[in-house]
Amino acid sequence: MTHGYVREDHKQALLARLKRAEGQVRGLQRMIEEERYCIDIVTQISATRAALDGVALEVLKDHVLHCVREGGAEKAAEVTDAVERLLRSR
Amino acid sequence: MTHGYVREDHKQALLARLKRAEGQVRGLQRMIEEERYCIDIVTQISATRAALDGVALEVLKDHVLHCVREGGAEKAAEVTDAVERLLRSR
Amino acid sequence: MTHGYVREDHKQALLARLKRAEGQVRGLQRMIEEERYCIDIVTQISATRAALDGVALEVLKDHVLHCVREGGAEKAAEVTDAVERLLRSR
Amino acid sequence: MTHGYVREDHKQALLARLKRAEGQVRGLQRMIEEERYCIDIVTQISATRAALDGVALEVLKDHVLHCVREGGAEKAAEVTDAVERLLRSR
Repeated sequence: MTHGYVREDHKQALLARLKRAEGQVRGLQRMIEEERYCIDIVTQISATRAALDGVALEVLKDHVLHCVREGGAEKAAEVTDAVERLLRSR
Repeated sequence: MTHGYVREDHKQALLARLKRAEGQVRGLQRMIEEERYCIDIVTQISATRAALDGVALEVLKDHVLHCVREGGAEKAAEVTDAVERLLRSR
Repeated sequence: MTHGYVREDHKQALLARLKRAEGQVRGLQRMIEEERYCIDIVTQISATRAALDGVALEVLKDHVLHCVREGGAEKAAEVTDAVERLLRSR
Repeated sequence: MTHGYVREDHKQALLARLKRAEGQVRGLQRMIEEERYCIDIVTQISATRAALDGVALEVLKDHVLHCVREGGAEKAAEVTDAVERLLRSR
C-alpha cells in the first residue's frame, strides 16, 4: 500500500513543489486574462514544465530505489514506459 | 497592449485548458497525499505536461501568425506543428 | 565488464537502429546541401531524435533491469540523472 | 527554390554541426560494440539529441526570420529562444 516516496519529510517537500506549480498555473491564467506578451507566457510554461519534471524525476528515483529492486523485467519496463511518456509529453 | 491570442473566444478556450491543468496539478497533490503508485504519478505528470505544451503551442502559433509576413495562418501552423513534433520526438 | 544490454541479439538490434539513425543524420546533411524546405528539415530532425530516444529507452530498461537491482541509492540517482539529461537535452 | 538558411557560411556551419552529430552516432555504435556502461551511452545520446536540437532551432530561426513581417532577426530569435526553453524544460 505505501510506496517509496512516502517518507514524511519527502512527501511534504513534493507537496510544496506541487503547490508552487499550482501557483504557476494560476499565474498563467492571470497572464492570459491580462493579455500578456506571448513569449512571456511560453517562458512561464517552460518554468512550470521544469517544476513538474523535477517532481517526476524525484518520484521516479524513489520508485527505482524502492520498488524496482524487488520486481523484475515487468517493473523495469514500467519505469521506461513512464520515462517515454514524459519524454514525449503524452 | 493587446496581443495575438486575445480573440475573446480563444482567450476563453486557453483559460479553460489552464483551469484543467490546474485541476491536474491539484490531483497530483492528492495522489502524493494518498501515497498512490509512483508510476501513476509520473503518468499524470506527463499528461499535465502535455496539456501545458498544448497551451504553449497555441500561444506560439498566434504569436507567429501575427508576425508572419505572408502565408498567414497556414505558415504559422506549419511552424508550430514542427515545434510540436520536436517537443514530442515524433 | 559486460553490462545488461549485451545479449548478442539485442546488441545487434541496437546497432541496427543506430545505423539507421546515422543514415538519418547523413540524410539531413544532404537536405541542407540541397537547400530543402526548413520545415522538412526540422521534421527529419524530430524523427532522428525519436530514433535515438528509442535506443536510450532500450538501454535504460536493460540498465534498470540488470544493474539497479543490486545497486542502491546511488544507482537509482544515476538513472534519474540520466533521464533528466535526456528530458532537458543536455 | 532557395530557402532562408542558405547563406553560404551558415550552410557550412550547419553541415559542420551535422558532421559532428554523425560522429556522435558512430561513437554510440562503438560504445554498444564495446559494451560500455549503460548510463554513459544514455548520456551520449542526450548530447547527440542536444546537438540535433541546436540545428533544428537554427533552421527554425531562419525560417521564422524569413516569414516575419516586422521586427526581423530579433523577433525570430525571440520565438526560437522560447522554443528552446520549452524543449529543454527550463
